[in-house]
Amino acid sequence: MTLTNGYEQSDREEKLNILNLPSLEGEAKKIIPTGGFGYIFGGAEDEWTLKENTQAFNHAQIVPRALSNIDHPDLSTDVFGLHLKTPVMMAPTAAQGLAHAKGETDTAKGVAAVGGLMAQSTYSSTSIADTAAAGNGAPQFFQLYMSKDWTFNESLLDEAKKAGVKAIILTVDATVDGYREEDIINNFQFPIPMANLEKFASGDGKGQGIGEIYAAAAQKIGPDDVRRIAEYTDLPVIVKGIQSPEDALRAIGAGAAGIYVSNHGGRQLNGGPASFDVLADIAKAVNHQVPIIFDSGVRRGSHVFKALASGADLVAFGRPVIYGLALGGAEGVQSVFEAIDHELEITMQLAGTKTIEDVKHAPLTHFQYND
Amino acid sequence: MTLTNGYEQSDREEKLNILNLPSLEGEAKKIIPTGGFGYIFGGAEDEWTLKENTQAFNHAQIVPRALSNIDHPDLSTDVFGLHLKTPVMMAPTAAQGLAHAKGETDTAKGVAAVGGLMAQSTYSSTSIADTAAAGNGAPQFFQLYMSKDWTFNESLLDEAKKAGVKAIILTVDATVDGYREEDIINNFQFPIPMANLEKFASGDGKGQGIGEIYAAAAQKIGPDDVRRIAEYTDLPVIVKGIQSPEDALRAIGAGAAGIYVSNHGGRQLNGGPASFDVLADIAKAVNHQVPIIFDSGVRRGSHVFKALASGADLVAFGRPVIYGLALGGAEGVQSVFEAIDHELEITMQLAGTKTIEDVKHAPLTHFQYND
Amino acid sequence: MTLTNGYEQSDREEKLNILNLPSLEGEAKKIIPTGGFGYIFGGAEDEWTLKENTQAFNHAQIVPRALSNIDHPDLSTDVFGLHLKTPVMMAPTAAQGLAHAKGETDTAKGVAAVGGLMAQSTYSSTSIADTAAAGNGAPQFFQLYMSKDWTFNESLLDEAKKAGVKAIILTVDATVDGYREEDIINNFQFPIPMANLEKFASGDGKGQGIGEIYAAAAQKIGPDDVRRIAEYTDLPVIVKGIQSPEDALRAIGAGAAGIYVSNHGGRQLNGGPASFDVLADIAKAVNHQVPIIFDSGVRRGSHVFKALASGADLVAFGRPVIYGLALGGAEGVQSVFEAIDHELEITMQLAGTKTIEDVKHAPLTHFQYND
Amino acid sequence: MTLTNGYEQSDREEKLNILNLPSLEGEAKKIIPTGGFGYIFGGAEDEWTLKENTQAFNHAQIVPRALSNIDHPDLSTDVFGLHLKTPVMMAPTAAQGLAHAKGETDTAKGVAAVGGLMAQSTYSSTSIADTAAAGNGAPQFFQLYMSKDWTFNESLLDEAKKAGVKAIILTVDATVDGYREEDIINNFQFPIPMANLEKFASGDGKGQGIGEIYAAAAQKIGPDDVRRIAEYTDLPVIVKGIQSPEDALRAIGAGAAGIYVSNHGGRQLNGGPASFDVLADIAKAVNHQVPIIFDSGVRRGSHVFKALASGADLVAFGRPVIYGLALGGAEGVQSVFEAIDHELEITMQLAGTKTIEDVKHAPLTHFQYND
Repeated sequence: MTLTNGYEQSDREEKLNILNLPSLEGEAKKIIPTGGFGYIFGGAEDEWTLKENTQAFNHAQIVPRALSNIDHPDLSTDVFGLHLKTPVMMAPTAAQGLAHAKGETDTAKGVAAVGGLMAQSTYSSTSIADTAAAGNGAPQFFQLYMSKDWTFNESLLDEAKKAGVKAIILTVDATVDGYREEDIINNFQFPIPMANLEKFASGDGKGQGIGEIYAAAAQKIGPDDVRRIAEYTDLPVIVKGIQSPEDALRAIGAGAAGIYVSNHGGRQLNGGPASFDVLADIAKAVNHQVPIIFDSGVRRGSHVFKALASGADLVAFGRPVIYGLALGGAEGVQSVFEAIDHELEITMQLAGTKTIEDVKHAPLTHFQYND
Repeated sequence: MTLTNGYEQSDREEKLNILNLPSLEGEAKKIIPTGGFGYIFGGAEDEWTLKENTQAFNHAQIVPRALSNIDHPDLSTDVFGLHLKTPVMMAPTAAQGLAHAKGETDTAKGVAAVGGLMAQSTYSSTSIADTAAAGNGAPQFFQLYMSKDWTFNESLLDEAKKAGVKAIILTVDATVDGYREEDIINNFQFPIPMANLEKFASGDGKGQGIGEIYAAAAQKIGPDDVRRIAEYTDLPVIVKGIQSPEDALRAIGAGAAGIYVSNHGGRQLNGGPASFDVLADIAKAVNHQVPIIFDSGVRRGSHVFKALASGADLVAFGRPVIYGLALGGAEGVQSVFEAIDHELEITMQLAGTKTIEDVKHAPLTHFQYND
Repeated sequence: MTLTNGYEQSDREEKLNILNLPSLEGEAKKIIPTGGFGYIFGGAEDEWTLKENTQAFNHAQIVPRALSNIDHPDLSTDVFGLHLKTPVMMAPTAAQGLAHAKGETDTAKGVAAVGGLMAQSTYSSTSIADTAAAGNGAPQFFQLYMSKDWTFNESLLDEAKKAGVKAIILTVDATVDGYREEDIINNFQFPIPMANLEKFASGDGKGQGIGEIYAAAAQKIGPDDVRRIAEYTDLPVIVKGIQSPEDALRAIGAGAAGIYVSNHGGRQLNGGPASFDVLADIAKAVNHQVPIIFDSGVRRGSHVFKALASGADLVAFGRPVIYGLALGGAEGVQSVFEAIDHELEITMQLAGTKTIEDVKHAPLTHFQYND
Repeated sequence: MTLTNGYEQSDREEKLNILNLPSLEGEAKKIIPTGGFGYIFGGAEDEWTLKENTQAFNHAQIVPRALSNIDHPDLSTDVFGLHLKTPVMMAPTAAQGLAHAKGETDTAKGVAAVGGLMAQSTYSSTSIADTAAAGNGAPQFFQLYMSKDWTFNESLLDEAKKAGVKAIILTVDATVDGYREEDIINNFQFPIPMANLEKFASGDGKGQGIGEIYAAAAQKIGPDDVRRIAEYTDLPVIVKGIQSPEDALRAIGAGAAGIYVSNHGGRQLNGGPASFDVLADIAKAVNHQVPIIFDSGVRRGSHVFKALASGADLVAFGRPVIYGLALGGAEGVQSVFEAIDHELEITMQLAGTKTIEDVKHAPLTHFQYND
């Protein structure tokens, strides 16, 4: 353990023997301090949306296919001009120093090891440059929580561009902080500084609650912001936090190069639909104009399959990776991706799908079940 | 504690630190005597309708909206000629002396402090005049349980009018007392007098069961009663206890100035639908001819949002306020309203709705979930 | 307690203080010996149908009605040429000596006391004549389990007719005994003789399992049997155990004077639909050609209301009455009927229905709930 | 107990007193060693599909029929040119030596005793010839897990044909091993050799995990393989593991003489629909061109009835038989079949169906229930 500002950070570095991703939560809870763990796993209000995010995958079912004459499914995919070895990517996730002393640099290493895609968060514990460097040339995106202060935004975007990120993910579903009861119960304040905030007067996040940090963030975000960031960076801008066809089209109309369907893992608006349930309609509206990233609730290879078969081009997840990070550092992260990729590979073979493109065209059934 | 007729009443006066409203029930149970608590929280028969009242909010989901370019949502609303700072109002609720020595006067103070609307019940522990005075000029409605004795009704209406109430709420769903098993288990009789009943021979309620009190109430209530009360008072009459489009139109035909959709918090007819489930159809039938108040099962800001988006103009609740009253008096009541308003404000921001009028036009999804 | 063949029978005679009928089961379990109790409360196989029988009442909801201008609902009803003070009748139920030393004679007394209708079972513990005499002139029906031996059938029908029963209920859903696991677990054999079987060589049931008794019963039952019994007795024949429109029409075609919709309380075919779920379609097909009796799962006044509103003319139940019999003899039976009638009366008032005929025309909603 | 390679095998030989098949699992768990039991009862991933396989039978309900004038239902059926005394057959199930020292030879004896149909698995603990001989002339099918090595396939098919099997079941849903967490938890390796693998260099399975064994199996299986096996053996080839109308037609197009609807008891692709839910659509597409066998989740006579009424010609099950084998050897197997046949017989009588052909034409209702 590493002690930072009185907060005990894991410094484990080892491969994990993973039975399945849901079981990681209990393991991680043992080594991540209460406040940090509550921040990571908690959702908004009574966590109804958080819970339904995962349950909703049962609303669609994968059809086992036979006599398909395939073997050795190929998980690689080409999207956003990148060639990735897996359609599963790292969601932009804040403050990974809560889970591990090496924070995002270890996550980036682990993701690179599996040939995946890493997304850095504005609220990273490690700096854009450090995280980028840790990725060893593997592709990374940078997620922007837009500040009211454009100097700050531009400074971050400059740094991201300099670090070579391939796209900007603009988060638009966090214009106020969700009502996260775990953080209230724990009276949680960030014990670890956020590297990207350090140069600004508003503070580096340390000793602040999520509410105070978000207070510096812009509440008013509109189509013009998408345009402005795209023009400023000349990078593809992916709009994250879309949950309706209307907003997807509004984002595309504003120049979005990608749609990121997410409800922030149930951490923002509680009482909204499961993210998976809105995916198919959004994909239909987007109609392949731009690629779609999907997250919220993904824990199994079968979830990845169902999301791809419902219109996603990439599927992201956060919490399980953070748990892997806490339990094993970069190698732990790698283990988590390998575990879900392994499940996905089995699912692809049994569903008669040789490629990710095949998965995207695989039929799903929609029988109704009660659990 | 204040001891009245051997019944221990809370006399706390303090701001509450509220995590969420559902958690107040357990806290309140510790300080409200068993019989009083059973009367407050119990419903009819096996409480199926009571339970579904809250569960049914999951039948609709709020669509998180992005790129809406809004901030600082405004909870104020204009309805029934009043300007209110919140669309959440106090439901008319009987016998608040069961929860606190100051009863309805403290509730009125707390509601006034948040700029909300207070509704007095016929069966209040404190008198119409006292409760009105406690409200400090903030608007109040008076709810009438119609007696068989019109002299009594007119006397109450006179007093209410004199006290300056802005409207009469005529309750029509309590022509007999629901089968409330908690009261039977506790052999509950009101230990605290009901101020408005004191001047009548039938007694002030003290030492009576709810059945005895309702026995003095009219069982036969029809459209003519709505007309008669409207004419007598020359005040808007809002008909409370509507659960069908047919009855809403019947009430309007009889001159109702407002429709109050409610199943009495599951305390009257068990085996009926959740109040939220019938709201949209009623609103469609009412078609903005008169405003709609909604209650039954409301515990979250997201519930308020969903009710407004389904056709309500005001959203009422009772039990959580009573718990807040027991736990903190007028300040406790204020804390309860502030808590739900805070949740509502976050929900409005994340749903891209700047005003209550926006909320009323917000789309809902209707995916089916099992919990 | 009375000891009969080593079996302890209740001999209590007292009014019961009933909170609700479901709560009687636990009370009765304490005083009815294990084998007898298992026989009474158990259902077929894993009791899925038994459980759904009651749950299915949640598939329809009663609309609370307001401004109906009614009071004092009237539970009396005219059906099969009889004037009854309640639409709730006693279902034909076997071997009531398992619950009480006085058996069916006490049940008949209790039912008569509330002005209801009693149905005797072929497998009664007390004789047709004795049970009829106990009814004090109140109307009774006789239920026939058809034997392979027509001499036996005719002898029973002669006796029933002599005793003055108003109709014959022919049970057609028990051509083989359901797979009742409670009886297998308890290795249950009837400890108490069945009075109507005493004169026959096949034995009086004592020391036999239900399977042995059913073995003497006819397996082949068809339309001709309905005709034959109607002609032989010149009494109305009501066919019990109907669960489909097709069979209802087939029974009417064969001369049935009434349709008895029942799945035998979940004791026969497991894996079939809840009896309530099939009622409305059957009633539509019957189209008022003959009256409909309904049973299976009825435990609340609201269930009676929903069954009447779905097409039933009379609503029967058995187990709760047997529990009341065990706990209080004739007065216990009376208490059970009074309890459910009281719930029904409240429900009728709150649903704006003055008469049973009004209830039959009351609308139901069909929102979907998960519990 | 027999000790084989340190693994304790049951050697019980006795009739079982069976309450119901679900209760056998707990009994069997006591005598089958942990690893073996986990292999038998476990499913893929979180076993959602496994669990829904059985729950889904509640999606359809059997209509109790009355006045049908039938008795003594006849369970015999003619299919694939065979006359069978029961429509319930033994599913091909691997490695039965895990449950009993006599393995498949005892199973074959038990199945023969009830006049049923036995299917041998490629991965049997006993040899094709021995198992066939144990069947005493009763019909058997041979199930092929196709190897990459055609010499091996042909050798097995030669042996099967020589042993007189009536058809080949080609399993096509196991081109990779499902992600079975029980086996991972137990680090399970087969302690008992698989007789049919003994002559091959790749080993006899002993000391291998299921993954290693499947590694020798073919991953690429297509229509040509169906044709090739049919031509090589000149026997009917039944394609097992079909879950969609498309694949059923593809198999028939390739010469399949039968369709075996199965999801491998939830052991392969998790997240797919319950096998019962896909049956009716497949049967509609097959349209009686070839017979249909159904398995996955069958535990009750009512399940068999519902599967037959949804289009199956034969209904198979595995786990309950293996539990019966462990608990009572050949006689235990016989007891299991007798128990389910007994339930089926009762169900048939109460549903008014005299023959299996009647069952196939019986109506089902589809009311929606939540458990």
